[in-house]
Amino acid sequence: MTSVGADERLARAALTRVFEPGDERGGRWLRRFGAVALLELITSPGARRERLTGVTGERLGGYRIRAEAAVPERDLAAIAALGGRFVCPGDPEWPSQLDDLEAARPIGLWVRGRPDLRIWSLRSVAVVGARACTPYGAHMAATLGSGLAERGWVVTSGAAFGVDGAAHRGALSAGGATVAVLAGGADRAYPPGHAELIGRIAEQGLLVAELPPGGHPTRSRFVLRNRVIAALTRGTVVVEAEYRSGSLVTARCAQRLGRFTMGVPGPATSGLSAGVHELLRGEAVLVTDAAEVVELVGDIGELAPSRRGPVLARDLLDPASARVLEALPARGAAEGREVARSAGTTTDEALGRLYELHSLGFVERCGDGWQLTARPTPAGAVRRGGT
Amino acid sequence: MTSVGADERLARAALTRVFEPGDERGGRWLRRFGAVALLELITSPGARRERLTGVTGERLGGYRIRAEAAVPERDLAAIAALGGRFVCPGDPEWPSQLDDLEAARPIGLWVRGRPDLRIWSLRSVAVVGARACTPYGAHMAATLGSGLAERGWVVTSGAAFGVDGAAHRGALSAGGATVAVLAGGADRAYPPGHAELIGRIAEQGLLVAELPPGGHPTRSRFVLRNRVIAALTRGTVVVEAEYRSGSLVTARCAQRLGRFTMGVPGPATSGLSAGVHELLRGEAVLVTDAAEVVELVGDIGELAPSRRGPVLARDLLDPASARVLEALPARGAAEGREVARSAGTTTDEALGRLYELHSLGFVERCGDGWQLTARPTPAGAVRRGGT
Repeated sequence: MTSVGADERLARAALTRVFEPGDERGGRWLRRFGAVALLELITSPGARRERLTGVTGERLGGYRIRAEAAVPERDLAAIAALGGRFVCPGDPEWPSQLDDLEAARPIGLWVRGRPDLRIWSLRSVAVVGARACTPYGAHMAATLGSGLAERGWVVTSGAAFGVDGAAHRGALSAGGATVAVLAGGADRAYPPGHAELIGRIAEQGLLVAELPPGGHPTRSRFVLRNRVIAALTRGTVVVEAEYRSGSLVTARCAQRLGRFTMGVPGPATSGLSAGVHELLRGEAVLVTDAAEVVELVGDIGELAPSRRGPVLARDLLDPASARVLEALPARGAAEGREVARSAGTTTDEALGRLYELHSLGFVERCGDGWQLTARPTPAGAVRRGGT
Repeated sequence: MTSVGADERLARAALTRVFEPGDERGGRWLRRFGAVALLELITSPGARRERLTGVTGERLGGYRIRAEAAVPERDLAAIAALGGRFVCPGDPEWPSQLDDLEAARPIGLWVRGRPDLRIWSLRSVAVVGARACTPYGAHMAATLGSGLAERGWVVTSGAAFGVDGAAHRGALSAGGATVAVLAGGADRAYPPGHAELIGRIAEQGLLVAELPPGGHPTRSRFVLRNRVIAALTRGTVVVEAEYRSGSLVTARCAQRLGRFTMGVPGPATSGLSAGVHELLRGEAVLVTDAAEVVELVGDIGELAPSRRGPVLARDLLDPASARVLEALPARGAAEGREVARSAGTTTDEALGRLYELHSLGFVERCGDGWQLTARPTPAGAVRRGGT
């Protein structure tokens, strides 16, 4: 598969140090000039820089100082040392749904974790909400997280205290897949109180950041991070949110992007449900459990199992995924651990691949285990012997 | 104003002993033959009775036995002794919105209480829900009841334990107007534990029954009573309801009749909110307080006070209402008690009239008191001196 060139990747990595997440002016320049030329323009002196219009000299000076200070080789080495990578538009792992963000599309994403971000995101739902949630909110987030994981859906959230953390933990507790989109660098555990959880997500799921390693989360970065959560997923569920809270930003962004927006009701007397109720009085759909979420975000195949089936020819699977697929029994289900053993890999690796295979329609959850999808392989995906 | 004739009223009163509430076959016969002729047909022997088609001889015999046992003069005397009346289609007090029930329209209504049922119902909302509600449900029902009353809306419900009772009490506690639609006779306090509440509603509000005095409530009568609650009001709010509960019958009936249907959210973990959430996943609108209810059911005038104004010329008011209107100060507000004193009547009577005048657009609530509507009297309703 094609991938972006080394120069382009290096320039984009540097630009993640120049522009704040979601800087639309930067996004438009990037589209107009390309990453390599844009970086050159920013650091070039005098007249050439004037092609970068619509911005004060002071601001342009700020961009220049940041660009000159950037050492993208070091950032790429840092993420690689953590077993991660810098995924750019044009890479096979780039989640193309982020293109819906247009000029606010991330320049690239710093990613940690084994699974493929693009494939996982195909079948993912965001579960977000208040940091200072009630025990009820934490319960609902955890129940949705585990329920979605049990149904083979990836749970995406922001790793914050409260609802976010409960949703991630719920997914992990069900042996499920979860993605944390961080407002700081992918090497930073923020909040520090969630260091262990974030570490587990790096092992079993995916950490995603717009900022390069070492980046600090700030108030505006938290808000802008939410657009990535909304754009990555098929829908956003809000579990407890006050009026004018960050979770509502995510939900409204999801709405603008044409994603499903859902809310979990709570007592009308609870200020922590007031924001959700406001959403539910608008376009958002009321949901009370994972089945209702999946009913909404699932494609026709989700409701009518007989129509489910691979969306990719089996031959096109990468070898590691193909090995995991081969490891599944022809009939009946197997647990992740058994599949890992047969495929000669770790349980975490096997689970990551199983979720990819689920997104692609090859396998499905069955209780605690996994099985091949019931439907006969479509014509375009006939097995041609071993892979 | 015209009123139905004595024969017609007597025949309809008798027919409320013959047909169960909502008997559509009876309703169609009634429309075809008229009350007097229908009663005659039911009790006539042999060949003439054959005009009543589509029913077994046994069923027809049952109707006959009931009709022969009816002593409508005694029922009319009984309701009169309680200060009540039997209101029929064609009477000025008949709430014409009940005609939306078509063949299931009540034959007539046995009514107790001073206010005019038709006028009160113009600006009424049903608040219904579970008998075995939670403290949260009772709190929400009471808060909605008082909030609606404070905004000049009449609170209609079924006098049952739980949500119904809390809604009536909330309205009464705010010095407001409330209507109880009973499944038994208007002389019967059912449930007996609500005897005091039902007595207070008879004094300060209205009791409405389809069954003649002495009628027993039965399971099917409870269910059929709900269609009257739905049809009488501008909208129905459900506060806590389990799956397949009677309150959902009321809500679905309201929907079919083109009334507004609303639900109060609760915890997704509460079985007593499950029915409400099911409604909210359909056409019903989520509401968390009385202001949101009024925003929905109120006409444009409710949202834009400047457009409010009388819908009836002042000269057409009945003398007692006109006296209460005269008793309001030209500027500022007065409490119900003061208005009663100026008008030379009781507080209950004055409040009943004030709610009528509110429905007609002459007055509005102002904190605990009442004031003349701000808007200049429209051309068609110019004062021509005293009334």
